Amino acid sequence: MAMMDRGVIARENETRIADLKRDYETLGERLSRRGIEIGEIKEKVKAYGVAIPSWGVGTGGTRFARFPGEGEPRDIFDKMEDCAVIQELTRATPRVSLHIPWDKADPGELRAKAAELGLNFDAMNSNTFQDQPGQEHSYKFGSLSHTDAATRRQAVEHNLECIEIGKAIGSKALTVWVGDGTNFPGQAHFTRQFERYLDSVKSVYAALPDDWRLFTEHKIYEPAFYSTVVQDWGTNYLVAREVGDRAYCLVDLGHHAPNVNIEMIVARLIQFKKLGGFHFNDSKYGDDDLDTGAIDPYRLFLVFNELVDAEKRNAPGFDPAHMLDQSHNVTDPVESLMSSAMEVQRAYAQALIVDRDALEGFQQDNDALMASSTLKAAYRTDVEPILAMARFEKGAAIDPVGTYRASGYRAKVAMERPAVTGAGGGIV
Amino acid sequence: MAMMDRGVIARENETRIADLKRDYETLGERLSRRGIEIGEIKEKVKAYGVAIPSWGVGTGGTRFARFPGEGEPRDIFDKMEDCAVIQELTRATPRVSLHIPWDKADPGELRAKAAELGLNFDAMNSNTFQDQPGQEHSYKFGSLSHTDAATRRQAVEHNLECIEIGKAIGSKALTVWVGDGTNFPGQAHFTRQFERYLDSVKSVYAALPDDWRLFTEHKIYEPAFYSTVVQDWGTNYLVAREVGDRAYCLVDLGHHAPNVNIEMIVARLIQFKKLGGFHFNDSKYGDDDLDTGAIDPYRLFLVFNELVDAEKRNAPGFDPAHMLDQSHNVTDPVESLMSSAMEVQRAYAQALIVDRDALEGFQQDNDALMASSTLKAAYRTDVEPILAMARFEKGAAIDPVGTYRASGYRAKVAMERPAVTGAGGGIV
Amino acid sequence: MAMMDRGVIARENETRIADLKRDYETLGERLSRRGIEIGEIKEKVKAYGVAIPSWGVGTGGTRFARFPGEGEPRDIFDKMEDCAVIQELTRATPRVSLHIPWDKADPGELRAKAAELGLNFDAMNSNTFQDQPGQEHSYKFGSLSHTDAATRRQAVEHNLECIEIGKAIGSKALTVWVGDGTNFPGQAHFTRQFERYLDSVKSVYAALPDDWRLFTEHKIYEPAFYSTVVQDWGTNYLVAREVGDRAYCLVDLGHHAPNVNIEMIVARLIQFKKLGGFHFNDSKYGDDDLDTGAIDPYRLFLVFNELVDAEKRNAPGFDPAHMLDQSHNVTDPVESLMSSAMEVQRAYAQALIVDRDALEGFQQDNDALMASSTLKAAYRTDVEPILAMARFEKGAAIDPVGTYRASGYRAKVAMERPAVTGAGGGIV
Amino acid sequence: MAMMDRGVIARENETRIADLKRDYETLGERLSRRGIEIGEIKEKVKAYGVAIPSWGVGTGGTRFARFPGEGEPRDIFDKMEDCAVIQELTRATPRVSLHIPWDKADPGELRAKAAELGLNFDAMNSNTFQDQPGQEHSYKFGSLSHTDAATRRQAVEHNLECIEIGKAIGSKALTVWVGDGTNFPGQAHFTRQFERYLDSVKSVYAALPDDWRLFTEHKIYEPAFYSTVVQDWGTNYLVAREVGDRAYCLVDLGHHAPNVNIEMIVARLIQFKKLGGFHFNDSKYGDDDLDTGAIDPYRLFLVFNELVDAEKRNAPGFDPAHMLDQSHNVTDPVESLMSSAMEVQRAYAQALIVDRDALEGFQQDNDALMASSTLKAAYRTDVEPILAMARFEKGAAIDPVGTYRASGYRAKVAMERPAVTGAGGGIV
Repeated sequence: MAMMDRGVIARENETRIADLKRDYETLGERLSRRGIEIGEIKEKVKAYGVAIPSWGVGTGGTRFARFPGEGEPRDIFDKMEDCAVIQELTRATPRVSLHIPWDKADPGELRAKAAELGLNFDAMNSNTFQDQPGQEHSYKFGSLSHTDAATRRQAVEHNLECIEIGKAIGSKALTVWVGDGTNFPGQAHFTRQFERYLDSVKSVYAALPDDWRLFTEHKIYEPAFYSTVVQDWGTNYLVAREVGDRAYCLVDLGHHAPNVNIEMIVARLIQFKKLGGFHFNDSKYGDDDLDTGAIDPYRLFLVFNELVDAEKRNAPGFDPAHMLDQSHNVTDPVESLMSSAMEVQRAYAQALIVDRDALEGFQQDNDALMASSTLKAAYRTDVEPILAMARFEKGAAIDPVGTYRASGYRAKVAMERPAVTGAGGGIV
Repeated sequence: MAMMDRGVIARENETRIADLKRDYETLGERLSRRGIEIGEIKEKVKAYGVAIPSWGVGTGGTRFARFPGEGEPRDIFDKMEDCAVIQELTRATPRVSLHIPWDKADPGELRAKAAELGLNFDAMNSNTFQDQPGQEHSYKFGSLSHTDAATRRQAVEHNLECIEIGKAIGSKALTVWVGDGTNFPGQAHFTRQFERYLDSVKSVYAALPDDWRLFTEHKIYEPAFYSTVVQDWGTNYLVAREVGDRAYCLVDLGHHAPNVNIEMIVARLIQFKKLGGFHFNDSKYGDDDLDTGAIDPYRLFLVFNELVDAEKRNAPGFDPAHMLDQSHNVTDPVESLMSSAMEVQRAYAQALIVDRDALEGFQQDNDALMASSTLKAAYRTDVEPILAMARFEKGAAIDPVGTYRASGYRAKVAMERPAVTGAGGGIV
Repeated sequence: MAMMDRGVIARENETRIADLKRDYETLGERLSRRGIEIGEIKEKVKAYGVAIPSWGVGTGGTRFARFPGEGEPRDIFDKMEDCAVIQELTRATPRVSLHIPWDKADPGELRAKAAELGLNFDAMNSNTFQDQPGQEHSYKFGSLSHTDAATRRQAVEHNLECIEIGKAIGSKALTVWVGDGTNFPGQAHFTRQFERYLDSVKSVYAALPDDWRLFTEHKIYEPAFYSTVVQDWGTNYLVAREVGDRAYCLVDLGHHAPNVNIEMIVARLIQFKKLGGFHFNDSKYGDDDLDTGAIDPYRLFLVFNELVDAEKRNAPGFDPAHMLDQSHNVTDPVESLMSSAMEVQRAYAQALIVDRDALEGFQQDNDALMASSTLKAAYRTDVEPILAMARFEKGAAIDPVGTYRASGYRAKVAMERPAVTGAGGGIV
Repeated sequence: MAMMDRGVIARENETRIADLKRDYETLGERLSRRGIEIGEIKEKVKAYGVAIPSWGVGTGGTRFARFPGEGEPRDIFDKMEDCAVIQELTRATPRVSLHIPWDKADPGELRAKAAELGLNFDAMNSNTFQDQPGQEHSYKFGSLSHTDAATRRQAVEHNLECIEIGKAIGSKALTVWVGDGTNFPGQAHFTRQFERYLDSVKSVYAALPDDWRLFTEHKIYEPAFYSTVVQDWGTNYLVAREVGDRAYCLVDLGHHAPNVNIEMIVARLIQFKKLGGFHFNDSKYGDDDLDTGAIDPYRLFLVFNELVDAEKRNAPGFDPAHMLDQSHNVTDPVESLMSSAMEVQRAYAQALIVDRDALEGFQQDNDALMASSTLKAAYRTDVEPILAMARFEKGAAIDPVGTYRASGYRAKVAMERPAVTGAGGGIV
């Protein structure tokens, strides 16, 4: 089994702990001047976790090419071992989200492996955007919204199977993303297509256990390039409302039109009790699936500002799921996922230290400059010492990437896992 | 009173009628081969009308400058005379939409003038995006969603006044567009701001006569540049649903994020019985308020394709209002409005000749190429002879712009109406 | 050899020629009223041709999936047979553009096959965006701009090989598109990266035969998602200027930022003598590679308006290459390519009938409305009878898609060419 | 004369200096661990200055409305007094940039006032996007690119006058921004229009003193909504190259298409020796003219990362001008300008502490993750103590906004300067 040398964390932390303690102390002093108890922030960060998508530990790609790295995981068990390394080094990623059929395996073995690695299972993800060997109907022209009833039924059945697997391994949610849409004006009748989609999702929902939630995801385009069935949060909201109380909207940060104010969409979904959760990543152009916070870290902070605000207000029905969803084309996926998990924590910590009483006063008085400055003051606080101390106290690495590199894990799995080649386009 | 020389239409038509008859006949022959009776299309075009916004007959501007033309209308009565010329020449624009307080006048005089000119009144438009002399509270930081209750009340009262004026002149709808939003992250609390907006709109709705409709308009940005209260159709739908059965969404073609599929939004609003109507115009970058069909005429056609589809399906609750809403910065507004009214008719006529049975078959069979071709075949049909014949038969001009120029109307009003100067930014 | 039943064209045309003649005649009459001789337009259309990219006859895909059709071509010879069918039915696509290494084959065999099919070879296309079996260095982090000199050398050598193959088969141009760029701020030093790119392209240019042209292509993003070395026409222009007189810019219609005015870029490149040619397609969101004219046909017309304007002005150095470049994910590629070739011809024919003297007058007088109307009058003319008559007179099909379907070609090759399966992401 | 109570700075600083010293010290310790001497960074920050545009101290507006604040400056002398307050409180804004004819006044008086206030004059700005009283020709259809030679001449003459005024007050640059463009396809001939523009700019350049620079500005759209003569950096580069050695490109951060990588454009202009300078601001949708760093502070940092890189490399010809250019619609302009000047300094300081040797190594090794982390490590450093200490040591305020509010300056000028009213659209 691929495992990291356990001693490496202690050895690496040893070299960094003195500086960290000093930085944590001086930050604590600065925060206390603002009336913030650093220890309370640290405890919240320690309690925070974001899920890892199983497919994230493999190298991604584009329609043009995929350039695999060394030691690519060959199956779900390899993937879980990589996820365990991420969790061991960061203690911020306790859950793994499976994708069926890519990760299909004996549920007992999955549970055993998870227990051994100290991981749990997050939402199940179905796949009706690809054809699979042995499958009777093709999804070329759609899945849950296909004009052909048998194809829709096949797609529904696949989702029901995902629920069954999920029940067996302790998952509590199903995430449905479909690529259904069109490439030409006229190719589909928008309304009939959406009605078919709604009918199918209702059939899936009917099989949902009482303690599960259903997450549907919107996306403006890709793989469909003229229209997409669930193209934006407006349609996604209608889906969740039509389908049922346990149906919620999932927000992927890269799935919106240019310039759209995503944090406002988050606020609206919270207000109308339909925010299901997130696929965190970053984007500059489209659904780029870049590392979270790599392009626009302030936007990430503004999203978390909404989440912390809702948390503090005890907004009714507020309990979003948090997951990373990225395509790692030019980095070691383990490093990107660790780094991204920490970026999410960073945005959370920064949002926690916003002076919300002051902010509310400025908002009430229309003091736009001071309202903005209040957010900026929290955002520009370097909370790294809080994150690092939280990791240290949980037995994780003060510097996860440095420690990972010191561990030699990648070289080790590169020897154990034969290289996968292929010039083909990548799937993410 | 500014009037056009009536004889000019007859004289100008005289020179064009022979060619028109020939073109109408050959087009009729071509359409009959496709199973279409040209006369039926012509009758539908004749029955179609789009409203003119009173402010549209003045020259628009940008924040940088306004360059007025000659003979600018000085008040609502001048504006109505210009509208009457448009209607006389096109017979496609029977209604005028007033904007309060710009068009405030004695209701009796308004009714009398309209009767004299053969015009009717369309939806009323309120204005809470500008401060007015004598007004107690400023809208600098919002109107219907302002943090200050007295300011919100003032904005509500203004809308109630618009309803009162509308009742007196026979209007049947109120259109509410507000610029409320923010320029800085943190400036407003998204949820509280939207709750205040909803409360205010409900207060307006409470005063709405039973046979009226309330239209709310969404817009991604401008004049607010970070967030806007009703930023997209998703929020607009929530407004309409929360407020009541007679509350509907208005779609302005220029109010969306880049790349957004507008025709799909139209379809969704039809499906969920909340399409109130349109502000037609065209845009390349933002809310450019360019002449309808000037930039992307195929998109306009695709919108009408949805409307005709809904009409043919007798979609429940389907009865959208049609209005132009443009800013004429470099053209004679009368010419732009005539031309745009004809572009709207053109898109309608093209959508009417789509072979919908064939299209439905191609959609069912996922024959994307033929579905697209079916739309394109209708779209590329030059329906100008149908539009021209419809005009001719209604006593309007075969060539409205040419006839208008021949009439000398602009030169005439330029003498009657003293020039308005000013380098200031324009208001549209 | 896969061939179409030759008689099918004659048989199908027989059923359509009478209507066509009538439509051609009435259109001719209408055009003559505008001072246009329809025969002259038809002759220009007959002389026009657009190249087919060899990869275009295969089904495309996205990073999520590829859904192959029936009878997919297995190699360059199959591809050429499909191209010959397109040419036979449209007589608008006399040339094929090869992509190396995908289309690598014995030059003599290629020439023989082309001669047999009546085709010629257009620009050569190199591929340094994928790794190939047996290749020493990976392009994961770039090719012509890679930090490693040996990798750059490998990429240059590959381009030199493309030139050699091209020389052997009669090509006269090399098109260079690279995906080089970055996914993270900081990943590359913009200036050093561009200097390396320029050095490499200069090395390729040094080997260019005197009667060849070098085309470089810009693209805002994809496969790189933060920065791309040749990201826009500004950089592309700098490349062409730095590299040499026979270096030109290639414009792919889908490679620009949202909202960008592409026809203006075309005008600028013509003015500065660096327009090399086009990859025609259409897009709504990004590099969607949709069928030409499927989304915004007016934009396509506006591009051709610039081309015809330059042609009429005898703009110095103006001689752009025309090629389609599309990804056919949901249609039969042969049908899409025929349809797109005709859309290109349509835009050309419409641009030819613009009344340029009138337009120039309106431009000089700032008569924006009439200038716009002048373009629209040409654009809305249904020139299909001209295109169809041009095809008919050249022995092609009046209705290429209908005739193709009647021919049974796809079913025939589906039997001859075994199905290729695979759920992998597609490469286009 | 409107002046701030001088004692307020000392009094306010007194309450903050102890905390600042502690924070500066602990930051110094942390930076020294990274090999950075905090004092060197502080000295560079102290030497840095950004110019204030005279129009920036007035409240801006949109085409819909302008909501003036209290104590609006009535003329250039009032504006200079406001600028002096900004400089006094921040010591980061030593220069004022004038806009003609808005700021036209006796040069001697301007010089005297500047000397009295301790200010200097930055680039001159001409205005040919508005008509002025007494002006013979209108700019409705363009200025430097107008079809009419007399109008172009008038626009050129106006620029020559700006140079004359500038010479008299010690300016060393002229910034030319024109709104010239079109609202309709066909309205102008792109090439002829650009040729006229180039001719006009050459005429202006011919009058440029030897020690002056000419800055031209590109902008994708607004006030023209279909095409703009200098629409992007590609065209702007061509202008600078065609016009002469002292002609340079000015980059306004809000003037680009959605998603465009602005820092890369900055790098290209540096590489080709044509970066003239900046108009700093921020934007979410278009040319929003929001406060610098208010929306995407990381993007601002990435721009400064390019500037510091060029500075360290001694890039030939590198000497960009720095100016703010914002529209303050909902804040006190003095506060926004102070805050924005500090945001610019912040980005500069963060860019100064990037570990460039490490970065170069990561770039060479294609270690994308560590390259990104290297930038992020600098960016997330809270450099506020450096900025505050730099201000303190220069006699400015540790907390400029707090000190300004304590000074009562706005209330004072509100009494001295009568309110300007008007519901008209704003000009910025």
